[in-house]
Amino acid sequence: MTYSLKHKYEHRVRYADTDKMGIVYNGTYLTYFEIGRTELIRDLGLPYSEVEKHGYHLPLIDANLQFRSPAVYDDLIDIESRCEFDPLSLRIKFLYNITLQGRTICTGLTTHVFIRSENGKPVKPPGFFVQKIYDRYEK
Amino acid sequence: MTYSLKHKYEHRVRYADTDKMGIVYNGTYLTYFEIGRTELIRDLGLPYSEVEKHGYHLPLIDANLQFRSPAVYDDLIDIESRCEFDPLSLRIKFLYNITLQGRTICTGLTTHVFIRSENGKPVKPPGFFVQKIYDRYEK
Amino acid sequence: MTYSLKHKYEHRVRYADTDKMGIVYNGTYLTYFEIGRTELIRDLGLPYSEVEKHGYHLPLIDANLQFRSPAVYDDLIDIESRCEFDPLSLRIKFLYNITLQGRTICTGLTTHVFIRSENGKPVKPPGFFVQKIYDRYEK
Amino acid sequence: MTYSLKHKYEHRVRYADTDKMGIVYNGTYLTYFEIGRTELIRDLGLPYSEVEKHGYHLPLIDANLQFRSPAVYDDLIDIESRCEFDPLSLRIKFLYNITLQGRTICTGLTTHVFIRSENGKPVKPPGFFVQKIYDRYEK
Repeated sequence: MTYSLKHKYEHRVRYADTDKMGIVYNGTYLTYFEIGRTELIRDLGLPYSEVEKHGYHLPLIDANLQFRSPAVYDDLIDIESRCEFDPLSLRIKFLYNITLQGRTICTGLTTHVFIRSENGKPVKPPGFFVQKIYDRYEK
Repeated sequence: MTYSLKHKYEHRVRYADTDKMGIVYNGTYLTYFEIGRTELIRDLGLPYSEVEKHGYHLPLIDANLQFRSPAVYDDLIDIESRCEFDPLSLRIKFLYNITLQGRTICTGLTTHVFIRSENGKPVKPPGFFVQKIYDRYEK
Repeated sequence: MTYSLKHKYEHRVRYADTDKMGIVYNGTYLTYFEIGRTELIRDLGLPYSEVEKHGYHLPLIDANLQFRSPAVYDDLIDIESRCEFDPLSLRIKFLYNITLQGRTICTGLTTHVFIRSENGKPVKPPGFFVQKIYDRYEK
Repeated sequence: MTYSLKHKYEHRVRYADTDKMGIVYNGTYLTYFEIGRTELIRDLGLPYSEVEKHGYHLPLIDANLQFRSPAVYDDLIDIESRCEFDPLSLRIKFLYNITLQGRTICTGLTTHVFIRSENGKPVKPPGFFVQKIYDRYEK
């Protein structure tokens, strides 16, 4: 079974986010994905800063992005994030759909794996993380 | 036939490029790809600013990145870029291999299409661009 | 007479905002100032994107920042902004006080002047801007 | 006596450095100052990464910037940095003059103080740093 969790977060496009084409710079979307992912796991009751205090990091192992339509300065975009969690895999997937008034701007996927901060070694998702996902499903 | 062109560019990792994990922030790699791509086409004799003066842009339509090994502050990395150009396609592909003393840090691919700046419409690669590629191949 | 207007905006510190010292990167504070300033004038009923549609920009002519105390990842900071407007001057000043639970993190000042987008020439603050300030004072 | 050291470093303006006004984003100049400062102390024979390995950081306590003239995408700018070191002060000052073909784009000043990484306490400039400055003056 794969557990699937969703979250939506509103973000205002800043001047700093744009480039000279007048649109959001392509590299900025990875920051938007970070924002979406962070707010999704905060919504589970687990701020990412807590994950780090427990001695873990959750770095990206790969990312892909599809740029569908430009977003411009001051747009109020929705960052929709979904976490796909399979208890039998070390990999955790996050999918993103960034929209402006319902129209898709950018979609993407990032794959992550938990590592121990002390040695950088990949490990299975820690119990305190898994429990938060189970708790959400039981509700 | 697909034309393939290569370029290598050295970059120093800046404080601004890093995040609190002490490593290069994932979104920064899209900036590194931009640097590699820009220097590759400059090396063809075509600064990207010239492309824009001709009334074209070459935006990303998709990107993917594989994070293999972290780079840290002050590392002197090599950004190896390759352009794959197929005259029968509107798509132009750039592949990247970022290395530190020969070890791969990050690999990636970006796909682009030429658009007219005035209306944002996709068009075939303009003649002045294609000619630069042919010129290089004839050498 | 100098008109003085205040606004407060809450911002979550993102991973992308930090550097390897584990704290907010110094250059990020100019982005925080931009966010505060933008939200202050939006609160006047004048999104900055409107200013640009009227054919004006409001670039910085100088900036200063005092770094008092570090902010770290995931902190929920308050960006307090104040606009000082003197109808007899071309200069418009914004002052900033960034705080975390009441403790000052960073203070700063940016000075701006309106320019016409078409030629970059400095001009007096346009009527539609001045009126918004007067309207607020009359309330 | 105040010791004064100079360094000049060439930088290419990247797409990521610009904003929708088509010019270098104001916050990017603090990154340019970082680049200038880092290369100045590397030129002394002391990479900043070494400073950190010795257990010190050299954070900013304040910064100011004057924006004189815009720089645009692909400009090849010169970052001229000067370090002012007074052995009787805890403060170390860096001054910057960013130019394009001799014309000033942006000037600035950052003030720093050495801190111990372990406790964040301000300390006098460590001997290994001071010695590098004396060595340069004796040449």
